[in-house]
Amino acid sequence: MQESGSRRRMIESTIELMRRSGLSGAGINEIVRASAAPKGSVYHFFPDGKQQIVAEALADYSPRVMRFMEEALVRGKSAPSKVRRLFDAFAQRVEAGDFAKSCAFGTVCLDLDRDLEPLRVIVESTFDRWAELIARHVDLGDARRSRSFAELVLTAIEGAYIRARAQRSSRPFREAGIWLAELVEPAVAPRRRSRRYEPW
Amino acid sequence: MQESGSRRRMIESTIELMRRSGLSGAGINEIVRASAAPKGSVYHFFPDGKQQIVAEALADYSPRVMRFMEEALVRGKSAPSKVRRLFDAFAQRVEAGDFAKSCAFGTVCLDLDRDLEPLRVIVESTFDRWAELIARHVDLGDARRSRSFAELVLTAIEGAYIRARAQRSSRPFREAGIWLAELVEPAVAPRRRSRRYEPW
Repeated sequence: MQESGSRRRMIESTIELMRRSGLSGAGINEIVRASAAPKGSVYHFFPDGKQQIVAEALADYSPRVMRFMEEALVRGKSAPSKVRRLFDAFAQRVEAGDFAKSCAFGTVCLDLDRDLEPLRVIVESTFDRWAELIARHVDLGDARRSRSFAELVLTAIEGAYIRARAQRSSRPFREAGIWLAELVEPAVAPRRRSRRYEPW
Repeated sequence: MQESGSRRRMIESTIELMRRSGLSGAGINEIVRASAAPKGSVYHFFPDGKQQIVAEALADYSPRVMRFMEEALVRGKSAPSKVRRLFDAFAQRVEAGDFAKSCAFGTVCLDLDRDLEPLRVIVESTFDRWAELIARHVDLGDARRSRSFAELVLTAIEGAYIRARAQRSSRPFREAGIWLAELVEPAVAPRRRSRRYEPW
Protein backbone atom coordinates (compact mmCIF):
# COMPACT_ATOMS: atom_id res chain seq x y z
CA MET A 1 0.00 0.00 0.00
CA GLN A 2 2.70 2.38 1.05
CA GLU A 3 4.78 1.24 -1.90
CA SER A 4 1.99 1.98 -4.30
CA GLY A 5 1.66 5.44 -2.71
CA SER A 6 5.35 6.13 -3.31
CA ARG A 7 5.04 5.01 -6.90
CA ARG A 8 2.08 7.29 -7.47
CA ARG A 9 3.88 10.25 -5.88
CA MET A 10 6.91 9.64 -8.09
CA ILE A 11 4.74 9.68 -11.20
CA GLU A 12 2.96 12.84 -10.10
CA SER A 13 6.24 14.55 -9.27
CA THR A 14 7.65 13.58 -12.64
CA ILE A 15 4.65 15.10 -14.42
CA GLU A 16 5.00 18.33 -12.42
CA LEU A 17 8.74 18.54 -13.03
CA MET A 18 8.34 17.91 -16.76
CA ARG A 19 5.65 20.57 -17.02
CA ARG A 20 8.08 23.04 -15.48
CA SER A 21 11.23 22.27 -17.40
CA GLY A 22 10.99 19.15 -19.48
CA LEU A 23 13.21 16.13 -19.30
CA SER A 24 16.13 18.05 -17.88
CA GLY A 25 14.06 19.12 -14.89
CA ALA A 26 12.91 15.58 -14.21
CA GLY A 27 16.16 13.96 -13.17
CA ILE A 28 16.10 11.03 -10.79
CA ASN A 29 17.43 13.22 -7.96
CA GLU A 30 14.75 15.84 -8.54
CA ILE A 31 12.02 13.18 -8.67
CA VAL A 32 13.24 11.64 -5.43
CA ARG A 33 13.35 15.05 -3.74
CA ALA A 34 9.96 16.20 -5.02
CA SER A 35 8.17 12.96 -4.20
CA ALA A 36 9.95 12.45 -0.87
CA ALA A 37 10.44 8.84 -1.91
CA PRO A 38 13.40 6.76 -0.78
CA LYS A 39 16.00 6.91 -3.55
CA GLY A 40 16.29 3.12 -3.80
CA SER A 41 12.59 2.86 -4.53
CA VAL A 42 12.96 4.58 -7.90
CA TYR A 43 14.82 1.62 -9.33
CA HIS A 44 12.55 -0.77 -7.47
CA PHE A 45 9.48 0.64 -9.20
CA PHE A 46 11.18 1.72 -12.39
CA PRO A 47 14.02 -0.70 -13.08
CA ASP A 48 14.79 0.98 -16.44
CA GLY A 49 15.31 4.31 -14.72
CA LYS A 50 14.51 7.72 -16.06
CA GLN A 51 13.19 6.80 -19.51
CA GLN A 52 10.74 4.38 -17.88
CA ILE A 53 9.43 6.77 -15.27
CA VAL A 54 9.13 9.53 -17.88
CA ALA A 55 7.28 7.25 -20.29
CA GLU A 56 4.86 6.16 -17.57
CA ALA A 57 4.32 9.73 -16.41
CA LEU A 58 3.53 10.81 -19.97
CA ALA A 59 1.14 7.88 -20.36
CA ASP A 60 -0.67 9.02 -17.20
CA TYR A 61 -0.71 12.65 -18.21
CA SER A 62 -2.12 12.33 -21.74
CA PRO A 63 -5.63 11.10 -20.82
CA ARG A 64 -5.94 13.98 -18.36
CA VAL A 65 -5.15 16.48 -21.10
CA MET A 66 -7.68 14.75 -23.35
CA ARG A 67 -10.40 14.94 -20.70
CA PHE A 68 -9.53 18.56 -20.11
CA MET A 69 -9.78 19.36 -23.82
CA GLU A 70 -12.97 17.37 -24.25
CA GLU A 71 -14.68 19.17 -21.36
CA ALA A 72 -13.90 22.50 -23.01
CA LEU A 73 -14.86 21.37 -26.51
CA VAL A 74 -18.27 20.01 -25.56
CA ARG A 75 -19.22 23.36 -24.05
CA GLY A 76 -19.10 25.06 -27.46
CA LYS A 77 -22.18 24.83 -29.63
CA SER A 78 -20.51 25.45 -32.99
CA ALA A 79 -17.03 25.00 -34.49
CA PRO A 80 -15.92 28.57 -33.73
CA SER A 81 -17.27 28.53 -30.19
CA LYS A 82 -15.63 25.15 -29.53
CA VAL A 83 -12.30 26.61 -30.66
CA ARG A 84 -12.67 29.63 -28.41
CA ARG A 85 -13.76 27.48 -25.46
CA LEU A 86 -10.71 25.30 -25.92
CA PHE A 87 -8.23 28.17 -25.96
CA ASP A 88 -9.99 29.91 -23.08
CA ALA A 89 -9.70 26.73 -21.03
CA PHE A 90 -5.95 26.62 -21.69
CA ALA A 91 -5.71 30.32 -20.86
CA GLN A 92 -7.24 29.61 -17.45
CA ARG A 93 -4.92 26.64 -17.04
CA VAL A 94 -1.74 28.70 -17.52
CA GLU A 95 -3.10 31.41 -15.24
CA ALA A 96 -3.76 28.81 -12.54
CA GLY A 97 -0.20 27.52 -12.95
CA ASP A 98 1.16 31.07 -12.62
CA PHE A 99 2.72 30.77 -16.10
CA ALA A 100 5.34 28.37 -14.80
CA LYS A 101 3.86 25.16 -16.13
CA SER A 102 3.47 24.08 -19.73
CA CYS A 103 2.41 20.96 -21.57
CA ALA A 104 4.69 18.10 -20.51
CA PHE A 105 4.75 16.84 -24.09
CA GLY A 106 5.84 20.21 -25.43
CA THR A 107 8.64 20.60 -22.93
CA VAL A 108 9.86 17.05 -23.49
CA CYS A 109 9.79 17.60 -27.23
CA LEU A 110 12.35 20.38 -27.02
CA ASP A 111 14.73 18.11 -25.11
CA LEU A 112 14.60 15.25 -27.58
CA ASP A 113 17.72 13.86 -29.17
CA ARG A 114 18.66 10.69 -31.05
CA ASP A 115 19.01 8.66 -27.85
CA LEU A 116 15.44 9.39 -26.92
CA GLU A 117 13.75 8.00 -30.03
CA PRO A 118 11.34 5.84 -27.97
CA LEU A 119 10.12 8.96 -26.18
CA ARG A 120 9.76 10.85 -29.45
CA VAL A 121 7.49 8.10 -30.75
CA ILE A 122 5.33 8.41 -27.62
CA VAL A 123 5.05 12.18 -28.07
CA GLU A 124 4.22 11.83 -31.76
CA SER A 125 1.47 9.28 -31.23
CA THR A 126 0.04 11.27 -28.34
CA PHE A 127 -0.20 14.42 -30.47
CA ASP A 128 -1.93 12.26 -33.08
CA ARG A 129 -4.58 11.20 -30.59
CA TRP A 130 -5.06 14.78 -29.40
CA ALA A 131 -5.51 16.03 -32.97
CA GLU A 132 -7.99 13.23 -33.60
CA LEU A 133 -9.98 14.29 -30.55
CA ILE A 134 -10.04 17.93 -31.62
CA ALA A 135 -11.04 16.99 -35.18
CA ARG A 136 -13.90 14.86 -33.86
CA HIS A 137 -15.32 17.85 -32.02
CA VAL A 138 -14.51 20.60 -34.50
CA ASP A 139 -16.13 19.00 -37.49
CA LEU A 140 -15.70 21.09 -40.63
CA GLY A 141 -17.71 18.72 -42.78
CA ASP A 142 -14.66 17.23 -44.48
CA ALA A 143 -12.55 14.73 -42.57
CA ARG A 144 -9.21 15.84 -44.01
CA ARG A 145 -9.93 19.53 -43.56
CA SER A 146 -11.10 18.90 -39.98
CA ARG A 147 -7.95 16.96 -39.22
CA SER A 148 -5.69 19.56 -40.77
CA PHE A 149 -7.38 22.31 -38.78
CA ALA A 150 -7.06 20.24 -35.58
CA GLU A 151 -3.32 19.98 -36.22
CA LEU A 152 -3.13 23.77 -36.50
CA VAL A 153 -5.04 24.11 -33.22
CA LEU A 154 -2.54 21.82 -31.53
CA THR A 155 0.39 23.73 -33.01
CA ALA A 156 -1.08 26.97 -31.68
CA ILE A 157 -1.66 25.49 -28.21
CA GLU A 158 1.94 24.32 -27.95
CA GLY A 159 3.22 27.67 -29.20
CA ALA A 160 0.96 29.62 -26.89
CA TYR A 161 2.42 27.73 -23.93
CA ILE A 162 5.84 29.06 -24.92
CA ARG A 163 4.64 32.61 -25.44
CA ALA A 164 2.48 32.67 -22.30
CA ARG A 165 5.52 31.74 -20.29
CA ALA A 166 7.61 34.46 -21.91
CA GLN A 167 4.95 37.11 -21.33
CA ARG A 168 3.51 35.80 -18.06
CA SER A 169 0.14 36.28 -19.67
CA SER A 170 -2.64 34.09 -21.02
CA ARG A 171 -3.17 36.48 -23.90
CA PRO A 172 -1.41 34.29 -26.50
CA PHE A 173 -4.03 31.58 -25.86
CA ARG A 174 -7.02 33.92 -25.94
CA GLU A 175 -5.78 35.68 -29.04
CA ALA A 176 -5.05 32.45 -30.89
CA GLY A 177 -8.52 31.18 -29.98
CA ILE A 178 -10.20 34.23 -31.46
CA TRP A 179 -8.19 34.13 -34.69
CA LEU A 180 -8.54 30.40 -35.23
CA ALA A 181 -12.26 30.56 -34.52
CA GLU A 182 -12.45 33.07 -37.34
CA LEU A 183 -11.05 30.44 -39.70
CA VAL A 184 -13.95 28.08 -39.05
CA GLU A 185 -16.75 30.60 -39.09
CA PRO A 186 -19.34 29.52 -41.59
CA ALA A 187 -19.31 31.67 -44.71
CA VAL A 188 -19.96 35.18 -43.55
CA ALA A 189 -18.80 38.37 -45.20
CA PRO A 190 -15.18 38.88 -44.11
CA ARG A 191 -15.94 42.44 -43.11
CA ARG A 192 -18.67 41.42 -40.72
CA ARG A 193 -16.62 38.54 -39.42
CA SER A 194 -13.68 40.68 -38.49
CA ARG A 195 -15.94 42.97 -36.51
CA ARG A 196 -17.40 40.15 -34.51
CA TYR A 197 -14.13 38.66 -33.32
CA GLU A 198 -11.67 41.41 -32.80
CA PRO A 199 -8.65 40.14 -30.95
CA TRP A 200 -6.60 43.30 -31.37
CA MET B 1 43.05 37.27 -31.31
CA GLN B 2 42.98 33.71 -30.17
CA GLU B 3 41.02 34.77 -27.09
CA SER B 4 38.43 36.46 -29.20
CA GLY B 5 38.19 33.27 -31.30
CA SER B 6 37.53 31.22 -28.18
CA ARG B 7 34.89 33.66 -27.04
CA ARG B 8 33.14 33.50 -30.41
CA ARG B 9 33.23 29.70 -30.42
CA MET B 10 31.73 29.60 -26.94
CA ILE B 11 28.86 31.86 -28.02
CA GLU B 12 28.24 29.78 -31.14
CA SER B 13 28.31 26.54 -29.17
CA THR B 14 25.88 27.98 -26.65
CA ILE B 15 23.44 28.91 -29.41
CA GLU B 16 23.68 25.44 -30.92
CA LEU B 17 23.23 23.72 -27.56
CA MET B 18 20.24 25.89 -26.66
CA ARG B 19 18.61 25.19 -30.00
CA ARG B 20 18.91 21.47 -29.28
CA SER B 21 17.75 21.34 -25.67
CA GLY B 22 17.38 24.73 -24.09
CA LEU B 23 19.12 25.98 -21.00
CA SER B 24 19.58 22.53 -19.58
CA GLY B 25 21.59 21.46 -22.62
CA ALA B 26 23.80 24.51 -22.41
CA GLY B 27 25.66 23.81 -19.19
CA ILE B 28 29.15 25.20 -18.71
CA ASN B 29 30.64 21.73 -19.18
CA GLU B 30 28.75 21.19 -22.41
CA ILE B 31 29.77 24.62 -23.70
CA VAL B 32 33.41 23.95 -22.89
CA ARG B 33 33.26 20.57 -24.58
CA ALA B 34 31.43 21.79 -27.69
CA SER B 35 33.61 24.84 -28.18
CA ALA B 36 36.86 23.06 -27.32
CA ALA B 37 37.70 26.07 -25.15
CA PRO B 38 39.84 25.82 -22.01
CA LYS B 39 37.45 25.59 -19.06
CA GLY B 40 39.04 28.50 -17.22
CA SER B 41 38.37 30.77 -20.18
CA VAL B 42 34.60 30.59 -19.66
CA TYR B 43 34.85 32.60 -16.46
CA HIS B 44 37.49 34.81 -17.99
CA PHE B 45 35.15 35.88 -20.79
CA PHE B 46 31.91 35.49 -18.87
CA PRO B 47 32.60 36.31 -15.22
CA ASP B 48 28.91 35.96 -14.34
CA GLY B 49 28.85 32.41 -15.66
CA LYS B 50 26.00 30.65 -17.36
CA GLN B 51 23.36 33.38 -17.26
CA GLN B 52 25.80 35.80 -18.86
CA ILE B 53 26.89 33.50 -21.66
CA VAL B 54 23.27 32.52 -22.34
CA ALA B 55 22.14 36.16 -22.41
CA GLU B 56 24.94 37.07 -24.81
CA ALA B 57 24.24 34.09 -27.02
CA LEU B 58 20.55 35.03 -27.21
CA ALA B 59 21.48 38.63 -28.02
CA ASP B 60 23.62 37.33 -30.89
CA TYR B 61 21.00 34.90 -32.12
CA SER B 62 17.98 37.22 -32.29
CA PRO B 63 19.19 39.50 -35.13
CA ARG B 64 19.98 36.40 -37.20
CA VAL B 65 16.41 35.17 -36.77
CA MET B 66 15.14 38.62 -37.70
CA ARG B 67 17.24 38.72 -40.86
CA PHE B 68 16.07 35.23 -41.71
CA MET B 69 12.42 36.21 -41.26
CA GLU B 70 12.83 39.44 -43.15
CA GLU B 71 14.42 37.70 -46.13
CA ALA B 72 11.42 35.38 -46.33
CA LEU B 73 8.84 38.11 -45.80
CA VAL B 74 10.15 40.42 -48.51
CA ARG B 75 9.83 37.64 -51.07
CA GLY B 76 6.05 37.60 -50.75
CA LYS B 77 4.08 40.13 -52.77
CA SER B 78 0.92 40.19 -50.65
CA ALA B 79 0.01 39.49 -47.03
CA PRO B 80 -0.99 35.85 -47.66
CA SER B 81 2.07 35.12 -49.77
CA LYS B 82 4.35 36.71 -47.16
CA VAL B 83 2.84 34.43 -44.53
CA ARG B 84 3.33 31.35 -46.66
CA ARG B 85 6.91 32.38 -47.54
CA LEU B 86 7.72 32.81 -43.88
CA PHE B 87 6.42 29.42 -42.83
CA ASP B 88 8.02 27.75 -45.84
CA ALA B 89 11.37 29.26 -44.86
CA PHE B 90 11.04 27.83 -41.35
CA ALA B 91 10.00 24.49 -42.84
CA GLN B 92 13.25 24.41 -44.79
CA ARG B 93 15.14 25.47 -41.71
CA VAL B 94 13.90 22.54 -39.61
CA GLU B 95 14.54 20.16 -42.47
CA ALA B 96 18.11 21.43 -42.75
CA GLY B 97 18.56 20.90 -39.00
CA ASP B 98 17.24 17.34 -39.31
CA PHE B 99 14.41 18.23 -36.89
CA ALA B 100 16.82 18.34 -33.97
CA LYS B 101 17.11 22.11 -33.65
CA SER B 102 14.44 24.57 -32.61
CA CYS B 103 14.24 28.24 -31.80
CA ALA B 104 16.67 28.99 -28.94
CA PHE B 105 14.13 31.37 -27.43
CA GLY B 106 11.39 28.74 -27.45
CA THR B 107 13.56 26.09 -25.82
CA VAL B 108 14.82 28.52 -23.18
CA CYS B 109 11.26 29.60 -22.46
CA LEU B 110 10.26 26.13 -21.40
CA ASP B 111 13.13 26.01 -18.91
CA LEU B 112 12.31 29.31 -17.21
CA ASP B 113 11.73 29.54 -13.51
CA ARG B 114 11.63 32.32 -10.92
CA ASP B 115 15.42 32.47 -10.64
CA LEU B 116 15.69 33.22 -14.32
CA GLU B 117 13.56 36.34 -14.42
CA PRO B 118 16.28 38.37 -16.23
CA LEU B 119 16.29 35.79 -19.02
CA ARG B 120 12.51 35.79 -19.23
CA VAL B 121 12.56 39.53 -19.77
CA ILE B 122 15.06 39.09 -22.62
CA VAL B 123 12.85 36.46 -24.24
CA GLU B 124 9.73 38.59 -23.85
CA SER B 125 11.27 41.70 -25.40
CA THR B 126 12.80 39.66 -28.21
CA PHE B 127 9.42 38.15 -29.11
CA ASP B 128 8.07 41.71 -29.07
CA ARG B 129 10.63 42.81 -31.62
CA TRP B 130 9.94 39.77 -33.79
CA ALA B 131 6.19 40.41 -33.74
CA GLU B 132 6.83 44.04 -34.63
CA LEU B 133 8.93 42.94 -37.61
CA ILE B 134 6.23 40.55 -38.84
CA ALA B 135 3.51 43.19 -38.38
CA ARG B 136 5.53 45.70 -40.38
CA HIS B 137 5.66 43.29 -43.32
CA VAL B 138 2.22 41.74 -43.05
CA ASP B 139 0.25 44.96 -43.04
CA LEU B 140 -3.46 44.36 -42.65
CA GLY B 141 -4.33 48.04 -42.91
CA ASP B 142 -4.94 48.44 -39.19
CA ALA B 143 -1.96 48.62 -36.83
CA ARG B 144 -3.60 46.74 -33.95
CA ARG B 145 -4.99 44.03 -36.18
CA SER B 146 -1.60 43.63 -37.92
CA ARG B 147 0.16 43.35 -34.59
CA SER B 148 -2.35 40.85 -33.22
CA PHE B 149 -1.99 38.72 -36.33
CA ALA B 150 1.81 38.91 -36.08
CA GLU B 151 1.57 37.58 -32.52
CA LEU B 152 -0.47 34.64 -33.80
CA VAL B 153 2.15 33.97 -36.48
CA LEU B 154 4.86 33.89 -33.83
CA THR B 155 2.79 31.59 -31.62
CA ALA B 156 2.33 29.22 -34.55
CA ILE B 157 6.06 29.28 -35.40
CA GLU B 158 7.04 28.37 -31.85
CA GLY B 159 4.39 25.64 -31.71
CA ALA B 160 5.36 24.26 -35.09
CA TYR B 161 8.94 23.86 -33.86
CA ILE B 162 7.63 21.58 -31.12
CA ARG B 163 5.41 19.59 -33.43
CA ALA B 164 8.03 19.32 -36.19
CA ARG B 165 10.39 17.81 -33.68
CA ALA B 166 7.79 15.30 -32.50
CA GLN B 167 6.89 14.27 -36.05
CA ARG B 168 10.29 14.70 -37.63
CA SER B 169 8.50 16.57 -40.37
CA SER B 170 8.21 20.15 -41.60
CA ARG B 171 4.51 19.66 -42.24
CA PRO B 172 3.37 21.58 -39.13
CA PHE B 173 5.09 24.68 -40.53
CA ARG B 174 3.74 24.32 -44.04
CA GLU B 175 0.24 23.58 -42.85
CA ALA B 176 0.20 26.51 -40.41
CA GLY B 177 1.44 28.79 -43.20
CA ILE B 178 -1.41 27.78 -45.49
CA TRP B 179 -4.09 28.20 -42.83
CA LEU B 180 -2.81 31.51 -41.52
CA ALA B 181 -2.43 32.88 -45.03
CA GLU B 182 -6.12 32.14 -45.46
CA LEU B 183 -6.87 34.47 -42.54
CA VAL B 184 -5.31 37.43 -44.32
CA GLU B 185 -6.70 36.81 -47.77
CA PRO B 186 -8.48 39.88 -48.98
CA ALA B 187 -12.23 39.45 -49.09
CA VAL B 188 -12.88 36.52 -51.40
CA ALA B 189 -15.79 34.16 -51.26
CA PRO B 190 -14.96 31.59 -48.54
CA ARG B 191 -15.82 28.77 -50.89
CA ARG B 192 -13.32 29.88 -53.48
CA ARG B 193 -10.75 30.65 -50.82
CA SER B 194 -10.81 27.19 -49.35
CA ARG B 195 -10.26 25.67 -52.77
CA ARG B 196 -7.23 27.79 -53.45
CA TYR B 197 -5.29 26.95 -50.30
CA GLU B 198 -6.03 23.41 -49.38
CA PRO B 199 -3.64 22.22 -46.74
CA TRP B 200 -5.35 18.89 -46.13
